Amino acid sequence: MAVSKLDEVVSLAKRRGFVFPAGEIYGGTRSAWDYGPLGVALKDNIKREWWRSMVVTRGDVVGVDTSIILPSDVWVASGHVSVFNDPLIECLSCHKRQRADKLEESYAEKHGDKLPENGLKDIACPFCGTRGEWTEPRDFNMMLRTHLGPVEDENSLHYLRPETAQGIFVDFKNVMTSSRSKPPFGIANTGKSFRNEITPGNFIFRTREFEQMEMEFFVEPGTDEEWQQYWLDARTNWYLDLGIKPENLRHYEHPKEKLAHYSKRTVDIEYRFGFQGSDWGELEGVANRTDFDLSAHAEHSGEDLSYFNQATGEKYVPYVIEPAAGLSRSLMAFLVDAYDVDEAPNTKGGVDKRTVLRLDPRLAPVKAAVLPLSKKPQLQEIAHNLAADLRLNDWMIDYDESGAIGRRYRREDEIGTPLCITVDFDTIDDQAVTIRERDTMQQERVALDKVADYVRARIEDKRVRVPQKPVEFGGEAWPDSVKIAEAGGLY
Amino acid sequence: MAVSKLDEVVSLAKRRGFVFPAGEIYGGTRSAWDYGPLGVALKDNIKREWWRSMVVTRGDVVGVDTSIILPSDVWVASGHVSVFNDPLIECLSCHKRQRADKLEESYAEKHGDKLPENGLKDIACPFCGTRGEWTEPRDFNMMLRTHLGPVEDENSLHYLRPETAQGIFVDFKNVMTSSRSKPPFGIANTGKSFRNEITPGNFIFRTREFEQMEMEFFVEPGTDEEWQQYWLDARTNWYLDLGIKPENLRHYEHPKEKLAHYSKRTVDIEYRFGFQGSDWGELEGVANRTDFDLSAHAEHSGEDLSYFNQATGEKYVPYVIEPAAGLSRSLMAFLVDAYDVDEAPNTKGGVDKRTVLRLDPRLAPVKAAVLPLSKKPQLQEIAHNLAADLRLNDWMIDYDESGAIGRRYRREDEIGTPLCITVDFDTIDDQAVTIRERDTMQQERVALDKVADYVRARIEDKRVRVPQKPVEFGGEAWPDSVKIAEAGGLY
Repeated sequence: MAVSKLDEVVSLAKRRGFVFPAGEIYGGTRSAWDYGPLGVALKDNIKREWWRSMVVTRGDVVGVDTSIILPSDVWVASGHVSVFNDPLIECLSCHKRQRADKLEESYAEKHGDKLPENGLKDIACPFCGTRGEWTEPRDFNMMLRTHLGPVEDENSLHYLRPETAQGIFVDFKNVMTSSRSKPPFGIANTGKSFRNEITPGNFIFRTREFEQMEMEFFVEPGTDEEWQQYWLDARTNWYLDLGIKPENLRHYEHPKEKLAHYSKRTVDIEYRFGFQGSDWGELEGVANRTDFDLSAHAEHSGEDLSYFNQATGEKYVPYVIEPAAGLSRSLMAFLVDAYDVDEAPNTKGGVDKRTVLRLDPRLAPVKAAVLPLSKKPQLQEIAHNLAADLRLNDWMIDYDESGAIGRRYRREDEIGTPLCITVDFDTIDDQAVTIRERDTMQQERVALDKVADYVRARIEDKRVRVPQKPVEFGGEAWPDSVKIAEAGGLY
Repeated sequence: MAVSKLDEVVSLAKRRGFVFPAGEIYGGTRSAWDYGPLGVALKDNIKREWWRSMVVTRGDVVGVDTSIILPSDVWVASGHVSVFNDPLIECLSCHKRQRADKLEESYAEKHGDKLPENGLKDIACPFCGTRGEWTEPRDFNMMLRTHLGPVEDENSLHYLRPETAQGIFVDFKNVMTSSRSKPPFGIANTGKSFRNEITPGNFIFRTREFEQMEMEFFVEPGTDEEWQQYWLDARTNWYLDLGIKPENLRHYEHPKEKLAHYSKRTVDIEYRFGFQGSDWGELEGVANRTDFDLSAHAEHSGEDLSYFNQATGEKYVPYVIEPAAGLSRSLMAFLVDAYDVDEAPNTKGGVDKRTVLRLDPRLAPVKAAVLPLSKKPQLQEIAHNLAADLRLNDWMIDYDESGAIGRRYRREDEIGTPLCITVDFDTIDDQAVTIRERDTMQQERVALDKVADYVRARIEDKRVRVPQKPVEFGGEAWPDSVKIAEAGGLY
């Protein structure tokens, strides 16, 4: 059931132009996907909502856009070059990579110093429990390599970033100085990252080219645990506010002994994708990276990356809280969560099944569709001009005059268009149109010159101030996990 | 004079956080640049205006977002693998790459079959005339290479795209079908591209990692010449409308014999950057790519990439008009064009020089600055709440309480903030603030509850329908080159 829903969403995404396999006419690839007209609009809307909530509406986070290709020095300092530099095997079920020798060692520890008789075939994955399903060991680094300049040698070796975060750390001093920021403050960065996954798969969930939305929040050591909880709550609320059902979200606390090399504590926000085998997948990680990255870059670069508090005379290397979201994965989660099948009346007085994407109107790619009831030039002209006028508000507006009106409704329901605006023969006389709402299918007659206001009221959610910690004067109280509580808690 | 202005802009850009060298703490690189808090806002505003004018407000262009890494098949078909596959030398002055053997051949042709006595030292660059200033010949392809998957071999070889255009051609059929489009229609694509420039330089003008805004407009063969003129005018008007001075723009017609392998005609829109040596640089190329790309991909992939017109029964491979803009270069042009130094009154009754970025308010990174006249908590609270409320409109708003008010004005002028809003002691009684306009420096008293409307009126330009060719019913007349004419023609 859950699996078939996922298949249906993938099929809809391809058919209606949300997501295509990249290079499909050349046989395609599981590595990367292209976003079609509706997909790019949905992705931009998600990104804009993230940027709005993380940067624009806050006073304490600034944005950057850093380079994809960075010199190897950066990745030596961050630990990315060394950490993945061993022969790794990958579990075919959960795709976690591990050192074969370490696995055999820990097997031996538990079995009176005896190595496994059949080698890796005897060893179960410590993450998911699957036994003996491993790739061959390979000397493998997950970063993609390229060479800049005319000569291919060690000096020209560069890496494509596997995360946008390091661009923030490397620019930390430049940004803090030029924006006159001081902790607690954050730097946000979005864009493409690349990982040489051995086994990409699950649609756009695991790809070699993907898009991230990361923010590093720099705080005074000692306040880091509280700030991590703040950001975990804020980020969870963001998904709930944009319509993700609470029963499809959960928190996963990384066990202490399996934390990444830089982390003091990491909690993932997971979504119930309904994958075969394991339902849940990571949407976002909220990590306490401590001062690991800034200290490492300070040591390797020789730059002082500490903050000097002029008021107190104290100097410290800030701790970092990182909410790191996957944009491609968010898009997939919003699609899966919005997908629904219900019933709609047909022309014979009965009901038909209809597919509807119940996307939050802020995320819906097309905000409204203008549908002239017939191809009469008088209706076409009114409809065409209405569409053109609505588009001036920076809204994607469909214009569709092909087929029966019921079929046109179905096409718009299927892509999540909140409003369908029908121009009919009465429109010529009463200068009004019929507006149909996606979820309720209720219709309302609205004067032509009030349509833009009507659409605006429906698609532009009441914006409210982002609740912030009262770290500065006059700040609002910090409503602990309001939305999570309202939703009755997470799964 | 022109050179020093460019230097001043670069210095301002670094100091105020528009643009930093990527990886500067590791010694930096000329290959790539990072965008700081103001730069990313300016870049996003430019991109949004482009997308708005090219996609959202039109009914005949849809968007895509395609992968950066594509299999080599794509680049074999497009000609990118073979065209640059010869040993090339590059002119150190104009950076054009050429085959050394071809240059020697054509020298010999003009000199009675005698090869140049001192080799390349005798040969002048056919593009810029500089004599004997060449790099060593290298077997050079401008595309960056990487390998996907665990094994590095011919099968895993992939290229980082040198242009976003090919992603559009490869997805042409998927997009046309799923969006039910038919010629004349366009597909727009923006994002990072990569070229292994031997000599990057001139700030963000020539870098190895850069951002493009490209649109491929598919038309019936025979209508291509008219459409090319339409797009050349439309794109030129876009720069003028966003404030680029007409005397700093010109068109450069590529000579027939030097056209790229795919082009029937190409006209560049050039901006007067004021580089040392040559003032002008390409902002955007408007090319007639004919059916070269679709035919090449049809041949290599075996897919039918023609369009079948059901109404007429005709079948054809569409011709393509391509307005290909550089986003990084546009940003540089907008910065250079907006940079100005004039005079402002000082506190001693005299005048001081002030630096002001006269950016169009739609492009300005920060829309308004809120400045409490003193650090009294009462003023801070009003100012803080005003800033928070204004930010709900998706506007970047500065809050600044440090230093004399004149100095704060200077800081905002320098980054192009259109409005400065001062909260003073009268505000507590009259619930009004003083708003100062960047260019005129005129001040006006505005009620607190009218500030948002005041800002909106100033920064959101009157939006007008994009003039379109009346290809469909009810379309407006196409005002030939209105803005170019109004501006008195280009340079």
